[in-house]
Amino acid sequence: MTGKEAPIGIFDSGIGGLTVFREVYRNLPNENIVYFGDTARVPYGSKSPETVLRYSRQIVHFLKTCGVKAIVVACNTASALALDVLEQEVDLPVLGVVKPGAAVACEMTKNRKIGLIATESTVKSGLYERLIRGIDPADTVYSKACPLLVPLVEEGWTEDPITLEVIKRYLGGLLEKDIDTLILGCTHYPLLRGLIRKYLGDSVSLVNPAYETARTLERMLDELDLKNPSAAEPVYRFYASDSTDGIRRIAERILPDCMDFSVQAVSIEEY
Amino acid sequence: MTGKEAPIGIFDSGIGGLTVFREVYRNLPNENIVYFGDTARVPYGSKSPETVLRYSRQIVHFLKTCGVKAIVVACNTASALALDVLEQEVDLPVLGVVKPGAAVACEMTKNRKIGLIATESTVKSGLYERLIRGIDPADTVYSKACPLLVPLVEEGWTEDPITLEVIKRYLGGLLEKDIDTLILGCTHYPLLRGLIRKYLGDSVSLVNPAYETARTLERMLDELDLKNPSAAEPVYRFYASDSTDGIRRIAERILPDCMDFSVQAVSIEEY
Repeated sequence: MTGKEAPIGIFDSGIGGLTVFREVYRNLPNENIVYFGDTARVPYGSKSPETVLRYSRQIVHFLKTCGVKAIVVACNTASALALDVLEQEVDLPVLGVVKPGAAVACEMTKNRKIGLIATESTVKSGLYERLIRGIDPADTVYSKACPLLVPLVEEGWTEDPITLEVIKRYLGGLLEKDIDTLILGCTHYPLLRGLIRKYLGDSVSLVNPAYETARTLERMLDELDLKNPSAAEPVYRFYASDSTDGIRRIAERILPDCMDFSVQAVSIEEY
Repeated sequence: MTGKEAPIGIFDSGIGGLTVFREVYRNLPNENIVYFGDTARVPYGSKSPETVLRYSRQIVHFLKTCGVKAIVVACNTASALALDVLEQEVDLPVLGVVKPGAAVACEMTKNRKIGLIATESTVKSGLYERLIRGIDPADTVYSKACPLLVPLVEEGWTEDPITLEVIKRYLGGLLEKDIDTLILGCTHYPLLRGLIRKYLGDSVSLVNPAYETARTLERMLDELDLKNPSAAEPVYRFYASDSTDGIRRIAERILPDCMDFSVQAVSIEEY
């Protein structure tokens, strides 16, 4: 496959990025997709910018060997810490999840007070805040790193009273700031939408960057005339740097029921 | 430094192994120590045996370049998944934390019912159970993987009511089995000793493999005539594959107040 029929490459630190895969799959049903999850080195959210950039470069090299026509950085942390460099280095369209998420948060807020929940490294990068204030300097961003939410999702406690308590603890401060919009700034968080909604009520709008990224990707492929015109059944390939029963269990909660999650192992350190 | 004056190498998937470092430091105050934490790829507890073995081999190669006289695998997961192979491959004494922990649990139990809490990969390996039943076939081991406990410790919630709720959830089933001994089978768990004790009461003995490992190491060095006879101030060196503020914060909770935690970065993938 070459040119327009080539697959889109999507990568994440692990399996959470399948929430982005899912939105791209729904939004662009003709496209072939290659997904890579760096499950041998997950998570990225507590690691340094240098390490996240090194890992992201290796993954981009791997995806290029798969002949992808564009790359989506599904991981918020990698988007926040590595996208700028990747955009300069890679001779393909590269799209992260942070810019689309920031843009839609600016559209949605009415009182100009936006909350962000994300990993420690994403919050520390300050990128969401810089992008949002670049769009509208009147906006204020209140950020909170939530390191326990990913492990809670991976444990499967997505509707659990303990998880609700953790969410209250993390989001209490943001609610006090009177935010009317909350960015779910990590791929796992959309799986906690129910509990977050339960705590915040209907007065706060939730922004899922995965959804916005899929819409932005569609516009980008349109503009670049890269949409797949073929009506052939699309092919989805899943790769991971480590494969365990655990990732299958999480993948099956995210992917559509009909989809087979067959993972091929990749020695990512060699790229 | 060569021979007896050479340092002891201690490694872990991350910073939790400093609980083992601490016990070795207390028990063998003359010894020089090199500590390595694989913070760029932490955690190991959800990863496959192949990946954990590959990472462990790289770290052993690195420690050998530091001229260590013996190696302590402080990580329960690496001890469970990689120690057998490392013992065969490495021309140095290698000690894990699982055997010492299993041995002392057998000594302590009176009703022959032993509980184990550990990472998913450690539980799945079945090694604690095999070792314990090898010592006393009358013993029964009840195991529970507790993936949320490490992130809770790393979040600093070691005396938090939410953590107590999580502990109740994880340990409830073990308590019903009438265990009288519980192995804290992950380097982070000794930091939750207070809450675990609060829930279990005084009728269950807690086994900290870190403590037992330090005692076993002392006996091993004695038998091999490898104890450091020098009265010189010992040198402690700390290395990590990734360095962030986060690891310093956790290290400072574990190490003695007087100790300076200066970390040097190592590109561990190159070993």
